[in-house]
Amino acid sequence: MSRTRFHDALDELKDRLLRMGGIAEQSLGYAMNAYRDGDRQQCALVFETEQAINAAHREIDELALDLLAMQQPMAVDLRFIVAVIKINADLERVGDQAVNIAQRVAEVLDLPPAELPADVPLIAGIASQMIRQSLDAFVRGDADLAQNVLVTDNDVDRMKREIEHAMLAKMHDSPEFTRQALDVLLIARNLERIGDHATNIAEDVIFWVRGADVRHRQVDVTG
Amino acid sequence: MSRTRFHDALDELKDRLLRMGGIAEQSLGYAMNAYRDGDRQQCALVFETEQAINAAHREIDELALDLLAMQQPMAVDLRFIVAVIKINADLERVGDQAVNIAQRVAEVLDLPPAELPADVPLIAGIASQMIRQSLDAFVRGDADLAQNVLVTDNDVDRMKREIEHAMLAKMHDSPEFTRQALDVLLIARNLERIGDHATNIAEDVIFWVRGADVRHRQVDVTG
Repeated sequence: MSRTRFHDALDELKDRLLRMGGIAEQSLGYAMNAYRDGDRQQCALVFETEQAINAAHREIDELALDLLAMQQPMAVDLRFIVAVIKINADLERVGDQAVNIAQRVAEVLDLPPAELPADVPLIAGIASQMIRQSLDAFVRGDADLAQNVLVTDNDVDRMKREIEHAMLAKMHDSPEFTRQALDVLLIARNLERIGDHATNIAEDVIFWVRGADVRHRQVDVTG
Repeated sequence: MSRTRFHDALDELKDRLLRMGGIAEQSLGYAMNAYRDGDRQQCALVFETEQAINAAHREIDELALDLLAMQQPMAVDLRFIVAVIKINADLERVGDQAVNIAQRVAEVLDLPPAELPADVPLIAGIASQMIRQSLDAFVRGDADLAQNVLVTDNDVDRMKREIEHAMLAKMHDSPEFTRQALDVLLIARNLERIGDHATNIAEDVIFWVRGADVRHRQVDVTG
């Protein structure tokens, strides 16, 4: 395989990872539609989408391994491929979280409705944006943008804690709504975990970019 | 680097990963001591151990990357190294879960004690055993043992659900203990996530062993 064809294959790998990210984001979107509209069909879409995510996860892993095996990659390409393998694992787990949320929403829909002071769609929107930003950072090799994601994660953690306190107070004051409040609390935690996965991705981007820079400089010196 | 020295380096990589697994297990052990004995010093040990885990995580990643870069690995070695990188990430997150548990335990210790029907150490013991078994499966390249871990994960999920239901009932019936019951519920979920990481490791072992087998057969045929 020529260097050009190898680099075409790296581009293909990147494109597939971005598509995977898009599917994971869409799955979270379905879960939030389900939550907002009380729509069970949107839950079903999340469960369907999980199959697509799992298939994409396997295919990306295999392509990455093939590229590692096919040609002695340069250090910078090597770190890129390893970053893809790690990001791929995080995106697959974003899909798992969307499934957990959808399961929880389906449960909530069976219960009497409760008035709960928790802006779940807001935290979901931020988590979704973090995924997109971390992948943007990856595409551009932009460690500063990745650093932004790490900062935003603190906001998500804070919002999750606020929801936790509010739901705890609700359970304490209105035990008849304990189950509903717990479900919302756990959905907030699932969203926080999605934020954590975006953070992992951002850290991988930093590792990849900074590591690649360091090695690149070494090549310049010795080459 | 000769093939022999390359294989020595692979052994070194494996040893370091096992040590990392041992540290992660120990950290969980400290967190459970803290829970059982109400011992804040054991919480502090968890926080200290996190530093060691993070350092080991970085070193293992760097060694794995060096090995990928240094020599065109054969397909079987390549899958081994990629499996190490993935397992390494899961072990680091086991350490994160131990930290979450220790933080939660420290919170519980500030609250009036509550009688809660939840065998947290039991689920912790099983989660810890799952980590050990998944690493054993890795050392021996034993996909059947890895498969066992996947089965055990169903037990952990069931126990977590049981604790969830029991704590929900407690919160409902004794709102004054809502906070304590929620903390135990969340600790059970952290333990379930440790079980999930063991499951991820077991799946990586299966991927590595079965993938290696397939490729090995191809080599036999063509070679």
